[in-house]
Amino acid sequence: MSLIVAKFGGTSVASPERIQMVAKKLIAKKQAGHQVVAVVSAMGKTTDELVGLAASLNDNPPAREMDRLLSTGEQVSMTLLAMAIEARGYKAMSFTGRQAGIETDGTHAKAKIVKVHNERIMEALNKGVIAVVAGFQGIDANGDITTLGRGGSDTTAVAVAHGLGADVCEIYSDVDGVYTADPRVCPRAKKLDVISYDDMLELSSSGAGVLQMRAVEFARKYQVVIHSRSAFSDAEGTYIKEETDMMEEAVITGIAHDTSEVKFTIRGVPDMTGVAAKVFSALAGNTVSVDMIIQNISEDGITDISFTCPGADLPRAKETVERILPDINARDYDVDEDIAKVSLVGTGMKSSPGVAARAFSTLGENQINILAISTSPIRLSVVVDGAQAAAAVRCLHKAFDLDSDSVFEETQLSAEEIAAKMNKGR
Amino acid sequence: MSLIVAKFGGTSVASPERIQMVAKKLIAKKQAGHQVVAVVSAMGKTTDELVGLAASLNDNPPAREMDRLLSTGEQVSMTLLAMAIEARGYKAMSFTGRQAGIETDGTHAKAKIVKVHNERIMEALNKGVIAVVAGFQGIDANGDITTLGRGGSDTTAVAVAHGLGADVCEIYSDVDGVYTADPRVCPRAKKLDVISYDDMLELSSSGAGVLQMRAVEFARKYQVVIHSRSAFSDAEGTYIKEETDMMEEAVITGIAHDTSEVKFTIRGVPDMTGVAAKVFSALAGNTVSVDMIIQNISEDGITDISFTCPGADLPRAKETVERILPDINARDYDVDEDIAKVSLVGTGMKSSPGVAARAFSTLGENQINILAISTSPIRLSVVVDGAQAAAAVRCLHKAFDLDSDSVFEETQLSAEEIAAKMNKGR
Repeated sequence: MSLIVAKFGGTSVASPERIQMVAKKLIAKKQAGHQVVAVVSAMGKTTDELVGLAASLNDNPPAREMDRLLSTGEQVSMTLLAMAIEARGYKAMSFTGRQAGIETDGTHAKAKIVKVHNERIMEALNKGVIAVVAGFQGIDANGDITTLGRGGSDTTAVAVAHGLGADVCEIYSDVDGVYTADPRVCPRAKKLDVISYDDMLELSSSGAGVLQMRAVEFARKYQVVIHSRSAFSDAEGTYIKEETDMMEEAVITGIAHDTSEVKFTIRGVPDMTGVAAKVFSALAGNTVSVDMIIQNISEDGITDISFTCPGADLPRAKETVERILPDINARDYDVDEDIAKVSLVGTGMKSSPGVAARAFSTLGENQINILAISTSPIRLSVVVDGAQAAAAVRCLHKAFDLDSDSVFEETQLSAEEIAAKMNKGR
Repeated sequence: MSLIVAKFGGTSVASPERIQMVAKKLIAKKQAGHQVVAVVSAMGKTTDELVGLAASLNDNPPAREMDRLLSTGEQVSMTLLAMAIEARGYKAMSFTGRQAGIETDGTHAKAKIVKVHNERIMEALNKGVIAVVAGFQGIDANGDITTLGRGGSDTTAVAVAHGLGADVCEIYSDVDGVYTADPRVCPRAKKLDVISYDDMLELSSSGAGVLQMRAVEFARKYQVVIHSRSAFSDAEGTYIKEETDMMEEAVITGIAHDTSEVKFTIRGVPDMTGVAAKVFSALAGNTVSVDMIIQNISEDGITDISFTCPGADLPRAKETVERILPDINARDYDVDEDIAKVSLVGTGMKSSPGVAARAFSTLGENQINILAISTSPIRLSVVVDGAQAAAAVRCLHKAFDLDSDSVFEETQLSAEEIAAKMNKGR
C-alpha cells in the first residue's frame, strides 16, 4: 500500500464530465489498495473570470480580498470532485487550504508555505476516505486565506505529499510527461522516463512549461518524488527525482525553447566605465528581469549593448531605456520581439567537455545565426532568430542523439504559433 | 452615530454595476457618521448554478460538501463588494461566516445560529472599516462550514445585528417595504411605516414574501428592529418592531394572499372515529404540511374530507392519499390546484369583534364563494377560487379602510401570473 497524492489542473476538472473521469482515476487507485489524496485547481477558466470581475470593480484590488475571492474557485472544484466520488460509492471529504493545514506566511497573492499540519487528512485517510484538497491556497497567522500565486496548485500537491510522507506526488496535466524537446516543434522528441530535479529546473526555467518551477524546487528540497503524467491516459509519465547513476549517462537530457523573451539593443553607447552599471541598475530598479547581456567590441570608443528580458517586462524595460538614453549619451535603441532562446540542458554536461563546440558547429552547419549565448554548469542557451527556433531545436536534438525512432505527427508551427503555445498560462 | 447592519440580496449584487450601487449606499451611511456592516447574498443566480453543478455529479450530494460548495457564492459577492468600497477610497474588509463568528449547530443545509462572536467585526468597525459579511453561512463545532437554508442571509443579518447590538437591521430588496396588500394585485395598497413582529409573521406565513419568516422570528426574540426597504431608492421603507400603542389603532394591518397551496378533497369517506386521524397522521408521516382542514357534514354516514397543503408537497400528498384510500374505504379524491388563500392580518383584531362577519358579508356581496376558513387570534384566512383571488383582496382591502388615495399603475394579473409571482424564490 502506498500513499499517493494526485494533482489535477484546471483543464482536468473543467466540466462535470471531466470531474467524473478524475473521480474514476482516484477510485481505481483506492481499489488498488492505496491511500489517496487529490489536490485540485479551479475549474477551467474560473480564476480568470474571478480576476476579471475584481478588475471591473477595483483597478488595484486589496490583496486580502483578492486571495479570498480566488480561493473560492478551488473550493468549488474540490467539493464537486468529492461529490462525484461519493456518488460512486466511495468515501470522500474535501479540505480547504485551512482544513488541510496548509500554513503560509502572510504574503497575499504569492504566499510561501511554512508548514503542513497533516492531522485532519491523516485521520480521514485512516478511515478509508479519499481526501480532496483545494490547491493554490493556505491560511496565514491571522486566519486569513492566502494564495500561492498562479500555478500554486502544483506546489500545494508537493507540500501535501511532503507533509503526509507520500510515496509519490502525481501531477496530472494535458501532457503525458517531460520530453527531450517540445513534440509540437520537434517531432522526434522522446518522453523521458526519469529526470533529475536539477535538469527539470533548468528545463522549466528555459521555457519547458510542464511543471511549475516552484513545485520542483520544493520537491528537490524535501526529496518528494514527482510523477508528471497525462490526465487523459493511464500511461506512465516521467518521474522527477534525485539524480541517479543511470541518469548521468546522457550528456544532454533535453532541449527547451522559449519565444517569450525580447531583445533590446542600445546603440552608440560611449564605452566608458559605469555605463553598463547605469543601464542595468536602472532596469533592476524598475523590476525588469534581465536574462542575457551582450556587449559588442568597442570601435572608436562607441559600442552597442544588448540584453534580453521576458516579454512581460517589455513596457517597463522600454520606459527605463528611454529614460536613461540621454544620461548615458547613447544614440538610440531598438527592440527585437521575434527571438527565441534555445537551451541544451543536462547534468551530464558537467563531465562532458565539448558540448558548446558541438552545438555551435551544428547550428553553423544549419545556417542558424547565434545572437547571444549564456551558460550554467548544466545548461547552454543560445538566442536565435524566432523564425529559426524550430530548426535549431531539431538539429540540436539530432546532433545530441536525442532523436526517437518514432515520429510525432508532423507539426510545422510558425514562430507565432510556437510563441502562443509557449506563453499559454498554466 | 448609529451602528447599522444592511443586508443586500442576490438581485442587489447580481452584477458589478449593482455592486457599485451597494458600495455607494454603504459609503453614504459611513459619511453620515454611522458604523456600517453589510451582509450579502450570492450574486444573482449563483446558488442555483452551483446546485445544478452538484446535481450533475451526485443525485444526493453529501451535505457537508454541498454547504461548502454553496458558501462560495457569498464569499465571491462579499469580496467584490469590499473591493468596490476600497476603490472609492473607503476601508472595507470581508468576513466569511467563520470570520464573522457565526457559530451554528451541525445541521448542514439548515443550520441554526447558536451564537455570534462579534470581536473581529467590532475591531474592524472601531478602525473605521466597513465590514462586509457573507450571509447564509456559519461554522459548526467541527470547523466545517454550514449553511442556514434558502433565504438564510436575512437571518444572518438579524443575528449579526443582535450580536453587535446594532441600532437597526436594514434589509434591502427589490420591494420598498411592507404593503397593506400586494400592489400588483391591489392597486390601492399602502406602504406601512411600521408593523409589529406578530403581524409581520402572520403576513409572511400567509404569503407575503417580503421578509424571511425565520429572520423575523429571530428579530422578535431578540428585539432587533428591522427596516425593510428598497435597494433602488433612498425612500424610507417599513420598520418591523415591537408592537406600540399607536400601532394598535388599525383593526387590520394588511391582507396577504397565497396561490401556492392546493386543495385535496377525499370523497365518500365513512364517517367513523379515527378515519380523519388515519388520513392526517399518514400525511404527517410523509412530511406533508397540512394547512386547513374542512370536514363536511355527514350524510348517511358518508362524508368528504378536504385539506389544503403547499403546492410543493403535492407529489407526496398525492402518493399518501392514493395509498390510504383503500384503508379508509373512501370512494375517490380530487385535487384543486387553482385556489388562493386570502388572509386578513391585524393585532388589532384581538380587541375588535366582528371582523369575520364583515369579511364574509363583503365577500358575499362580491359573489366570492368561500371554500374554507381558518383563524388565529390575529388572522382570518379564507380559501377562494384562484380566479377570484385578486377581487377578494381588493374588496376586503376597501372594506377594512386600507385603500390609499393614490393608485398604483393598474395591474390586472391572471391567477397564473399571480401564482408565478408569489412562488418566486427569495
